[in-house]
Amino acid sequence: MDYNKKFMRKAIALSLENIKKGGGPFGAVIVKDGKIIATGVNRVTANTDPTAHAEVNVIRKAAKKLGTFDLGGCDIYTSCEPCPMCLGAVYWAHLDKMYYGNTKIDAKKIGFDDSFIYDEIDLNPNDRRVKTIQLLPEEAIVAFDEWVLSEDKVVY
Amino acid sequence: MDYNKKFMRKAIALSLENIKKGGGPFGAVIVKDGKIIATGVNRVTANTDPTAHAEVNVIRKAAKKLGTFDLGGCDIYTSCEPCPMCLGAVYWAHLDKMYYGNTKIDAKKIGFDDSFIYDEIDLNPNDRRVKTIQLLPEEAIVAFDEWVLSEDKVVY
Repeated sequence: MDYNKKFMRKAIALSLENIKKGGGPFGAVIVKDGKIIATGVNRVTANTDPTAHAEVNVIRKAAKKLGTFDLGGCDIYTSCEPCPMCLGAVYWAHLDKMYYGNTKIDAKKIGFDDSFIYDEIDLNPNDRRVKTIQLLPEEAIVAFDEWVLSEDKVVY
Repeated sequence: MDYNKKFMRKAIALSLENIKKGGGPFGAVIVKDGKIIATGVNRVTANTDPTAHAEVNVIRKAAKKLGTFDLGGCDIYTSCEPCPMCLGAVYWAHLDKMYYGNTKIDAKKIGFDDSFIYDEIDLNPNDRRVKTIQLLPEEAIVAFDEWVLSEDKVVY
């Protein structure tokens, strides 16, 4: 049996169910040692949380369940190629592999901004749609200096 | 009085306090109509949540407080240039302006992956460190087709 397809079909089933529950058409699962340890769906509008994408949600749930911020050894199956926010979360979680169904172009066609945000990230900060201004770097750096000197920090 | 500097100094103060509280050296505030409506700090290790960056946290709190996923009309002040995850969150939240103190290069120098993740996003998915595989697109697209036909969807 093809386990990869089984887990992707679960992510797709979640994306379909979520439409009926008032959420966006996105679902994801995280798998460790051949078992699903967490599932997630898009709850942006339902929870009024712009960060509540399926991948962010499933990563948060899996990390809570395993009691660690490091999901090394786990894979993610997501019904759609992640947006930059979710791709960033995949990296921060140190997931091993990522399987996806739909593409960011498919998402663009039905009205989601994923592709637009990828384009924006490629631009110089000064050319982005979100006006971006650096301020007080000489004061901000003090926290980084303190971090380096801090003896009980947890590095990740 | 320079309000922008006042709000950035609050974000920096949060980043400094957070080191003492066992978190990373990052703080952020969201401002609407000249008033701080939410604050956030990095709680990745403290909460075992890889997505708990200062910007994601402050966006979630502000959206909850205002009861909307659309933070148009708000600005964010963050003690460090956001990573791709947080920059994505800034776009999804439709924030107006972003002020930052330290840069992603400063973050790299003290051991954070922000800069590395920006480099990865620029690569073709097949060349990225996280192995990425498309699977069952012909089944995944069904949810997007259903979404288009769904009559009570909330678009964002």
